[in-house]
Amino acid sequence: MSVTSHDVARLAGVSQATVSRALSDHPKVSPRTKHLVREAAAQLGYVPSEAGRSLSSGRSRRVGLLVTDLDNQFYAQLIPPAHRELERYGYQLMLHTESGEDAAIADRLIAGGLAGVILATATLDSATPARLHDRSVPFVYFNRTGSFVEADATVVDPVPGHEAAVEHIVAAGHRRVAAILGPENTSTGRAREAALRNALRRHGIHLPAHLVRRGGYDTETGDRAMTELLADARPTLVFAANDVVAIGALNALRRAGAVPARDVSIIGFDDLPPARWDIIQLSSIAYDLEAMMRETARLITARLEGSTDAFHSATFSTRYVDRSTVGVLPSAGG
Amino acid sequence: MSVTSHDVARLAGVSQATVSRALSDHPKVSPRTKHLVREAAAQLGYVPSEAGRSLSSGRSRRVGLLVTDLDNQFYAQLIPPAHRELERYGYQLMLHTESGEDAAIADRLIAGGLAGVILATATLDSATPARLHDRSVPFVYFNRTGSFVEADATVVDPVPGHEAAVEHIVAAGHRRVAAILGPENTSTGRAREAALRNALRRHGIHLPAHLVRRGGYDTETGDRAMTELLADARPTLVFAANDVVAIGALNALRRAGAVPARDVSIIGFDDLPPARWDIIQLSSIAYDLEAMMRETARLITARLEGSTDAFHSATFSTRYVDRSTVGVLPSAGG
Repeated sequence: MSVTSHDVARLAGVSQATVSRALSDHPKVSPRTKHLVREAAAQLGYVPSEAGRSLSSGRSRRVGLLVTDLDNQFYAQLIPPAHRELERYGYQLMLHTESGEDAAIADRLIAGGLAGVILATATLDSATPARLHDRSVPFVYFNRTGSFVEADATVVDPVPGHEAAVEHIVAAGHRRVAAILGPENTSTGRAREAALRNALRRHGIHLPAHLVRRGGYDTETGDRAMTELLADARPTLVFAANDVVAIGALNALRRAGAVPARDVSIIGFDDLPPARWDIIQLSSIAYDLEAMMRETARLITARLEGSTDAFHSATFSTRYVDRSTVGVLPSAGG
Repeated sequence: MSVTSHDVARLAGVSQATVSRALSDHPKVSPRTKHLVREAAAQLGYVPSEAGRSLSSGRSRRVGLLVTDLDNQFYAQLIPPAHRELERYGYQLMLHTESGEDAAIADRLIAGGLAGVILATATLDSATPARLHDRSVPFVYFNRTGSFVEADATVVDPVPGHEAAVEHIVAAGHRRVAAILGPENTSTGRAREAALRNALRRHGIHLPAHLVRRGGYDTETGDRAMTELLADARPTLVFAANDVVAIGALNALRRAGAVPARDVSIIGFDDLPPARWDIIQLSSIAYDLEAMMRETARLITARLEGSTDAFHSATFSTRYVDRSTVGVLPSAGG
């Protein structure tokens, strides 16, 4: 005879719904009630079945996180806060990557029986949002704007960080500035490019085509682009599309025997943990990625709990963090 | 009227079981059959329900990966190959971390309705294996030996890599060797310590207590230990428990104004991607972590498919990779 949540509820003196919420560590259940329920469950040898929970509530407690590439340090960085925060709300994180055709991705997400999806991929032309919408699978955009299908979203405003960075580098004497930009079919790539060009323009600095490289958000792009820029254009400073790209650029500098800040200055974006290592000390444009993922998890769970109607968008500001990869030119202030 | 897998099977001219396997991308279904089934499913607008699949087969297609800390780069490194390989076998990866009491972890894994679990946590004294065994949840050990409960396992043999490393450093003139060792309650920490001490002993080098530090597998441990060693003991070379610890040690060196190889040499373990960056170039003891996770996924899925009876263990050898953090002393060969 198997023990049910009804038995646990009776022993603990609470409702069956409270048993389920207490055992999934729901933040709205008090520590004392959680303790009572766990004691009762332990005493009876009760183990809740996730499949049973899913059937009784009509849907699963699983939220998908769709990323482009798990091997990329930026996407790897999203997993711990997403995992922690969803768990806090009693949901489990499911990882999904974009490999394969675009249409197949939405079908895989739907087939996975997910309650909802966090879309952390970058491409604007993806059909995934529309397909999820057609199938009534709730989703939230992480770090993406300008999509055709409306949904809750968390976004980064790259303007304040770029303005502060450009102010700093102009004061340090930099005028010959290059950029390794992100993919043109991403909202992040476009938004950062616009923010950079506008900030430079206000200081009378133009970003000519021969000082611009483009590519994916990976170290290879940064490595190749920096190697080309060193050979052709010799900028005094390079804005990298993100920190992963900046690390690739630093690798190219090292191989060329050049020293960051002294020979070429570099600024990243995202302020990932390696940027703070003493052996790297990358100047970067930072925002609170941890808080942003917390807010993303909150938005999707609020949507799943039906506690919200209107679409919400949360914007996270940026700031410039000056470390050791930006140098002062002899001409500065002279 | 909802479309069922029966309808898809009829249209594609295959069995219902084949429809389920084809849509979960099972490796044993031919690409042609997968194509037929997907076409039929698309034509009918069929979306398989994971909950339905789980009920019809009596268990879920979800495999848990239990790690100590997702923020740690070593554990983050395990996720992409585990995810990819499990997906190839038609299983989904669920992440679990060790936060909370030990007993609660096993209950959470069981409550999650997992088909099986990959135990990638390091502590030997954990009660999790016994609890999973009692509940008949199949599991496999990743990188752990010497547990009381028998199960399939993948392990690393640290001996060849340490012998090659010690041979190299002895030829380079190093005799005053220090070590930052991993936790004593982990099999990896114990196995690496024994391999290092034995290899050094064969060359007449002793590892005295004042040249040994211990701690967790994190950058803070490496940073603190190297700071202490620089102040007290001044070794010419330091073996770090792994690459994450070695990066912490490199950070401490940089802050002290010391140069790796020239002032103090450092050797890591795991050969993670940052070890290969030109700006780090960490000498390390390497093994094929990617192949090891592939084999781990194969072992747990074989166990779940019931295609195996005896317990299997796969051992991955190590080798020394010499990069830029090990220097040659003036006395070497002199």
